[in-house]
Amino acid sequence: MDTRLNYKVDPMDRVEFHNNACFCIGTGRMNLALRHEYHEQLKKVQEEIGFSHIRGHGLLCDDMAVYHTYEEDGEEKAEYNFTYLDMVFDDYRSMGLKPFVELGFMPEKLASGDQTVFYWKGNVTPPKDYDKWADLVTAVIEHWINRYGRDEVVTWPFEVWNEPNLGGFWKGADMPEYFKLYEVTSKAVKKCDSGIRVGGPAICGVDDERWLRSFLEYCSANRVPLDFVTRHAYATEAPQNEGHYQYQKLRTPEAFIAELNTSRSIIDSFTEYAGMEMHITEFNTSYTPLNPIHDTNLNAAYVARLLSEMGDTCASYSYWTFGDVFEEAGVSFTPFSGCFGLLANGKIPKPTYWAFSFFQKLGENAIFRNEHAVITKDGKGILRGVCWNIAEEEGPSYLTLDFSLELEKGKYVLIQKMVDEDTCNPLKTWVNMGMPANPAAEELKLIKETALPQVSTKTFEVMDKEGKVEIKLSANGLCYFEIKPVQAKADRGYKPEWIRGVDR
Amino acid sequence: MDTRLNYKVDPMDRVEFHNNACFCIGTGRMNLALRHEYHEQLKKVQEEIGFSHIRGHGLLCDDMAVYHTYEEDGEEKAEYNFTYLDMVFDDYRSMGLKPFVELGFMPEKLASGDQTVFYWKGNVTPPKDYDKWADLVTAVIEHWINRYGRDEVVTWPFEVWNEPNLGGFWKGADMPEYFKLYEVTSKAVKKCDSGIRVGGPAICGVDDERWLRSFLEYCSANRVPLDFVTRHAYATEAPQNEGHYQYQKLRTPEAFIAELNTSRSIIDSFTEYAGMEMHITEFNTSYTPLNPIHDTNLNAAYVARLLSEMGDTCASYSYWTFGDVFEEAGVSFTPFSGCFGLLANGKIPKPTYWAFSFFQKLGENAIFRNEHAVITKDGKGILRGVCWNIAEEEGPSYLTLDFSLELEKGKYVLIQKMVDEDTCNPLKTWVNMGMPANPAAEELKLIKETALPQVSTKTFEVMDKEGKVEIKLSANGLCYFEIKPVQAKADRGYKPEWIRGVDR
Amino acid sequence: MDTRLNYKVDPMDRVEFHNNACFCIGTGRMNLALRHEYHEQLKKVQEEIGFSHIRGHGLLCDDMAVYHTYEEDGEEKAEYNFTYLDMVFDDYRSMGLKPFVELGFMPEKLASGDQTVFYWKGNVTPPKDYDKWADLVTAVIEHWINRYGRDEVVTWPFEVWNEPNLGGFWKGADMPEYFKLYEVTSKAVKKCDSGIRVGGPAICGVDDERWLRSFLEYCSANRVPLDFVTRHAYATEAPQNEGHYQYQKLRTPEAFIAELNTSRSIIDSFTEYAGMEMHITEFNTSYTPLNPIHDTNLNAAYVARLLSEMGDTCASYSYWTFGDVFEEAGVSFTPFSGCFGLLANGKIPKPTYWAFSFFQKLGENAIFRNEHAVITKDGKGILRGVCWNIAEEEGPSYLTLDFSLELEKGKYVLIQKMVDEDTCNPLKTWVNMGMPANPAAEELKLIKETALPQVSTKTFEVMDKEGKVEIKLSANGLCYFEIKPVQAKADRGYKPEWIRGVDR
Amino acid sequence: MDTRLNYKVDPMDRVEFHNNACFCIGTGRMNLALRHEYHEQLKKVQEEIGFSHIRGHGLLCDDMAVYHTYEEDGEEKAEYNFTYLDMVFDDYRSMGLKPFVELGFMPEKLASGDQTVFYWKGNVTPPKDYDKWADLVTAVIEHWINRYGRDEVVTWPFEVWNEPNLGGFWKGADMPEYFKLYEVTSKAVKKCDSGIRVGGPAICGVDDERWLRSFLEYCSANRVPLDFVTRHAYATEAPQNEGHYQYQKLRTPEAFIAELNTSRSIIDSFTEYAGMEMHITEFNTSYTPLNPIHDTNLNAAYVARLLSEMGDTCASYSYWTFGDVFEEAGVSFTPFSGCFGLLANGKIPKPTYWAFSFFQKLGENAIFRNEHAVITKDGKGILRGVCWNIAEEEGPSYLTLDFSLELEKGKYVLIQKMVDEDTCNPLKTWVNMGMPANPAAEELKLIKETALPQVSTKTFEVMDKEGKVEIKLSANGLCYFEIKPVQAKADRGYKPEWIRGVDR
Repeated sequence: MDTRLNYKVDPMDRVEFHNNACFCIGTGRMNLALRHEYHEQLKKVQEEIGFSHIRGHGLLCDDMAVYHTYEEDGEEKAEYNFTYLDMVFDDYRSMGLKPFVELGFMPEKLASGDQTVFYWKGNVTPPKDYDKWADLVTAVIEHWINRYGRDEVVTWPFEVWNEPNLGGFWKGADMPEYFKLYEVTSKAVKKCDSGIRVGGPAICGVDDERWLRSFLEYCSANRVPLDFVTRHAYATEAPQNEGHYQYQKLRTPEAFIAELNTSRSIIDSFTEYAGMEMHITEFNTSYTPLNPIHDTNLNAAYVARLLSEMGDTCASYSYWTFGDVFEEAGVSFTPFSGCFGLLANGKIPKPTYWAFSFFQKLGENAIFRNEHAVITKDGKGILRGVCWNIAEEEGPSYLTLDFSLELEKGKYVLIQKMVDEDTCNPLKTWVNMGMPANPAAEELKLIKETALPQVSTKTFEVMDKEGKVEIKLSANGLCYFEIKPVQAKADRGYKPEWIRGVDR
Repeated sequence: MDTRLNYKVDPMDRVEFHNNACFCIGTGRMNLALRHEYHEQLKKVQEEIGFSHIRGHGLLCDDMAVYHTYEEDGEEKAEYNFTYLDMVFDDYRSMGLKPFVELGFMPEKLASGDQTVFYWKGNVTPPKDYDKWADLVTAVIEHWINRYGRDEVVTWPFEVWNEPNLGGFWKGADMPEYFKLYEVTSKAVKKCDSGIRVGGPAICGVDDERWLRSFLEYCSANRVPLDFVTRHAYATEAPQNEGHYQYQKLRTPEAFIAELNTSRSIIDSFTEYAGMEMHITEFNTSYTPLNPIHDTNLNAAYVARLLSEMGDTCASYSYWTFGDVFEEAGVSFTPFSGCFGLLANGKIPKPTYWAFSFFQKLGENAIFRNEHAVITKDGKGILRGVCWNIAEEEGPSYLTLDFSLELEKGKYVLIQKMVDEDTCNPLKTWVNMGMPANPAAEELKLIKETALPQVSTKTFEVMDKEGKVEIKLSANGLCYFEIKPVQAKADRGYKPEWIRGVDR
Repeated sequence: MDTRLNYKVDPMDRVEFHNNACFCIGTGRMNLALRHEYHEQLKKVQEEIGFSHIRGHGLLCDDMAVYHTYEEDGEEKAEYNFTYLDMVFDDYRSMGLKPFVELGFMPEKLASGDQTVFYWKGNVTPPKDYDKWADLVTAVIEHWINRYGRDEVVTWPFEVWNEPNLGGFWKGADMPEYFKLYEVTSKAVKKCDSGIRVGGPAICGVDDERWLRSFLEYCSANRVPLDFVTRHAYATEAPQNEGHYQYQKLRTPEAFIAELNTSRSIIDSFTEYAGMEMHITEFNTSYTPLNPIHDTNLNAAYVARLLSEMGDTCASYSYWTFGDVFEEAGVSFTPFSGCFGLLANGKIPKPTYWAFSFFQKLGENAIFRNEHAVITKDGKGILRGVCWNIAEEEGPSYLTLDFSLELEKGKYVLIQKMVDEDTCNPLKTWVNMGMPANPAAEELKLIKETALPQVSTKTFEVMDKEGKVEIKLSANGLCYFEIKPVQAKADRGYKPEWIRGVDR
Repeated sequence: MDTRLNYKVDPMDRVEFHNNACFCIGTGRMNLALRHEYHEQLKKVQEEIGFSHIRGHGLLCDDMAVYHTYEEDGEEKAEYNFTYLDMVFDDYRSMGLKPFVELGFMPEKLASGDQTVFYWKGNVTPPKDYDKWADLVTAVIEHWINRYGRDEVVTWPFEVWNEPNLGGFWKGADMPEYFKLYEVTSKAVKKCDSGIRVGGPAICGVDDERWLRSFLEYCSANRVPLDFVTRHAYATEAPQNEGHYQYQKLRTPEAFIAELNTSRSIIDSFTEYAGMEMHITEFNTSYTPLNPIHDTNLNAAYVARLLSEMGDTCASYSYWTFGDVFEEAGVSFTPFSGCFGLLANGKIPKPTYWAFSFFQKLGENAIFRNEHAVITKDGKGILRGVCWNIAEEEGPSYLTLDFSLELEKGKYVLIQKMVDEDTCNPLKTWVNMGMPANPAAEELKLIKETALPQVSTKTFEVMDKEGKVEIKLSANGLCYFEIKPVQAKADRGYKPEWIRGVDR
């Protein structure tokens, strides 16, 4: 079913819009940051989009080789190895990224048990000795202060652990034990520098209301340091398993946003925490790296909508993740494998990549916003917009947006960058080529040629204060557009009207 | 007016097709090869297309600083400076290019007069001393043999001077004087190594029949070395001047080809030269670097047709030129200035760039060829085609080609790369932006985003030995396509039919 | 104690010298080839030295994620994942490297036990099902044939397992079980293509004579495929442990070579194997990645001597390893950690790096060779030499080599590239800077500035057929030199004798 | 004759030292900035040294193609082409460089005569119409303001013409005519923005006292805008010509500096100009690009001395030039040709390159300075020094500097980077190779390997507040050194004293 909607837009208006799409991005575990393909993907992301922070698991896991012990004089002593940590963080910094530090999981030598999470086996048990844990946290932060400078390190947010409200990530989803961990850890952080900001509880949407409320009560009652609240948010239901994959029903964007509102309200219900920053340290449509939705245009359109609204309640929201170098559920057999990344392996941008690229250009000064579009204006009077057409159900479903803009008399150019199932859909190309598990170099090249937005321009004339701009979105279309005044000035003797192929 | 044409194609057929589109490419004068923008443009061309040879003017002009004299013991002595020559040729070789050496123009110190050609003032008068000219030619070639090795240098074709049949390029268009120059020069070349191949007369289409016939008669009568014949070919009439620009009527492709046939016949009419290689050392639509046609999609479609047919009579045909670093008519005021290049300054590929990129992929094993298309088959059974829709006149004019292919039962993918006035037309973008003489970096980026072919794939099933493929070309559309069998194999549990946005 | 030795060298002589220094190089386990630092180090090595093959452990270990099983219809079925394998091998091939394939260790799902080796836990138990193991080997090779072409894959040597004569690498050092593994595996390889060359037993120098003899007897008796023999060789005694490090006594080069001679004799004692290629698939001074000797100039001088002699008995000899991205004994705490690499982390070339760089330039046409030097001559009459001064004991010990060369009358230039404890000793720089565990960027830069050979030139004149060249080596000095005739030709007016600072 | 000198250095001292070595660098004419070799050389210079400004001739010459005229409606009208200007300035800015704009020479269409300067023929006659000249200047600056922003352009210094006190650069060395040009031009500049700083008279050391005094009198009397004074300074006498080269006697550094003092005094003698900035917009040893001295170590040592003293009287001093892409005296026949550059063609750093690299690291906070050395201290207590040993006469002449430093008890490292005739002398290498006019790639590589400073470190212990540091300089040696405290901390078990080849 096709839809046509008309909107009046007055560039003098000012509407609420907090655009923090590029504050933080998720990543596979820290050890993967040593990989070449990871480096190449992240470099591309940073050159073309440019996030400020990055957050991932596994900072203190054994494959980062930080925590060691040895015996001397009959005692077990700790020693710290920063070789890999420095490689990873040096690399981040060379790409303009700060860490959003997630403190976890447990080094084997410090662990109280052997329960692990993921294919890569992160230990999720409490420390067997909280003092040694605090020493470890302190040692790591002191090392960073020495290497990168105090002024730098105090600008990094620190978060304690990951999703302790799931038994898979924290043994027994043991709430009191987490509160103890949080207290010890946040105090260890503050001991290094009281200016470092620390937060939690990094919960996901399971029993989250009770966890959040209890956590805030605990912090408040015990005067535990807390600078911001963190949680995660995903938009899918329980999965149906098929071979290597998991398929799920997607919830509505409204349902997704409602969950955030609830958290917001809980925080604001505490006098001492009202208005405190809430960072969504992970979000995506599906929470499993085995759901093909992540590779689709639907995902891009859906995420665009979220990006336009999450700033209403959240200080930031970190898409989980930038790339498909990721091993939580094992190693993908194929380049498109339903993994979280903005990029598939081989540096293929998925449609959702462009949602971030587009929001990055928007700025914050919005003049129009609704469930289909957001439009901003910059200091030079250039209008920039993003619009989308979420279409989960099959069938043709064009959405045409007619904007009627109050503009000065003159000539304008409308620039459009279109990402939809026809024009920018590398997954389709790959499927059409027979889903090769290990594409040859030239197949990969072709796939990437179909992963770029279709860019077009057209001009229009405003005679009487009204400019009409029509954006036609096919199913799951995502469009970035710019509208700017044109002062045409032809070179001496240049006659566009005599030249074949240009607009008159 | 829209047209639909139906063709039966049998991949077992074999039709005549000599594809030498990438044998040689033209360039602005040698001194420009020292430029950074030139280097960057040529690097792009070589990485993405890959020509074998390059040919341009000005090898011996004073800005290459080769020929010098000084006085010693009361005599004038010559000395040679190879600094710039080596910079240029080393650079060519680093990019996989051999020179198609054009010997000319005249160093001032050797010139008999002061007539010059072009904004950059190449001296076009005969040598004042033919012995010293022969010494110069010999010295240069001996230097190359020392530097690059004899085995390499004997693979470079040598051509004597440029368009002597025009008074602008050769004082007085003096035919006997040219024959003398040719004789002295060709013998000087052969003196260095008899295996080096030398040719002429490098004429353009003015009084060309008489020149060609006389030249061959002269060579034959005087036993002058001649290994191949060279000429130029352009497709436009006399220009109308407007400011910095020149506008011209385009002749038909048939008329263009007919001129080559005439030259071919003249050569073949000499017993000793029948079948001798004829190299078109320059061709293009317009012969002036001030005609906006070079920047259009019309040019691309027109050139595609020429590339499909010139091999019928010519050993090679060198498009004039690879890039817009060019100063024959001065320095362009704007990035799109009607100059010859495949690339506009700023490394913007013009539509014609893709014509060469597409023919480069074709190979020579044709199974179908007519005035709209050529299709080849490679050793693995993959079909590759190029088709075009030349539309000089305004108005809608779709051309739809329906190919009915004899194919084995099975699934196939059709890959299309489309270059037309809507999808890949950087000139239009630039015009829509107001024709900025000096685009800002982000304007340039946008222009380049609209200079890429639109790539798409679709699959089809062959049940009963017949595959139907439809290619729809809009006005001046140029399309590359591939047809190849697909063995689809889904990863365990991967269900394309459950995934939004891919073909079923 | 200083020494001065005189040698007469006649460039018309021809002495035995098989230079295969760059045939193969060792690497940390395959999974590490996914790392960015690894990629950067290997790229440098390949650009500046250029090995032909690369060999490392862990091809089939779980972190390469090749072998998987799942249940279907009540049975366990195997499935293969080539994602990482292709990343690694594609990367090797992009750098001009072929694999010297080591088949091992055991995927957990195929293993008969849980014994592992190394920090990174490679499973070293026999397959629980030899048919499934054979299927895995076949599947991998068939995949390579599909991806890289049969013609390519048949040029790769295949070796079965690693050091089965050590219980640590092969459960129980069980000889009959290894022979079974070898037989099954070599037959699986040959089943893919009988042209693929396969060998073993990949033993190190422990009980090696009995192992080699038994292995050859077994192959001979059972008509097991065998195209070449492989073994390892190291030059150190049992270690003394101190903290993270191991210190060892170095054996003499003569002792090292003697061990190879013994293996050679054993092979040659079998009629059917006499003269068969013996590949040293690992060698180095010390066999532990915790011995600081690897980072020293002593190591470079010692290895130079080995490179000059190993070709006498061995088809190739693969230095273990190209770089310090290596985790067999854990992750190094510091950039210089006594690990095997030619490069330390941070892309610092160690002195031994230059030994390979120098031998790579030598070619094989030797005119002089002894325990201190080897000199070759190329087709253009240029002499190239490498010489060294092994000095394990402390104290000054210059070695001066006086070469008296039969040369034609004329002017010559002597080029020297010197690597010794004073001029090219990055380890010393690092120690002088206080041994920083995690050097800052500028410290790293300085270390690298002291890791380059000191290059110098001087000229000499030969009047009467005798050229005298003196090379002075300080302790553990390693020197590359070239001697070539000079045809000096000054530019007009250039007077070197008037210019301050150049040789007269 | 060898010399040994002893100095006491107290790091608490503070001595006068204005280090502005990297404020500005000279370049060949603007058109050469379009060259690839130029771009590569400048990129290297900027990455490794990093100048702030760049100044060269030929901004408005015809090969920059800025000024054009055409007839319309019976009048001659001007039109401006910024294509090349933008290419050059965009490139500068991409490398972090601002222009020190030199306004000149005269476009042919605006010139009153045809006198030219240099091989590349810059027109040096006054404008035939001063209004049109002013229009041109204004148009160019307005274009820059549009393109780069007003805030940026007001930070660029502007200088009017070049060396008008020489008849070769300004027809007739006509002083009143220059004052007119200066007045018109400076007012045109100020018209664009009164914040732009403009200066002159850009004279060299010929009749310079009279010129400078008259110029200041003129400006003062006529209230002509003047923000700073500019002049040039060279240190050589009249040349002796030999073939392509010119040889000259070098004046003493004292004589060179005295000339600057005189200019300074003249300026300061005007009440209204006392203390006004004096910029040396060109300096070097020799003023001819044909004097081999520029390629020597003597030049480096001499320039180092100048860099240590010029700041006493001058706001800045711009070495003429950064590279050897230069055509004032024609095109060099050889890579070392006595041209001005810090780099020879082929990106070979000459010894003087390192003088700038070393001063760049010094900072300004000097604790010691005399005719042989300057030493600074940074905020972290690290000492950095540069010292030199100018030795014009032949013969051994070591200079040993013994510094006795007041330092805290502890361990220190002394880092030295030595550039002298033995260790870092690419000219010598080239001469030894026979002075090849066109070196092959591998010859060039070797030359560059001998163009790097020899870097070494050693440690010393301070027991009783006194550290002794000895720097030994051979003839024309130039040395950079650093002294910093070392906190040695060995990894657990690492025993430097057991390791061969490191200091104990």
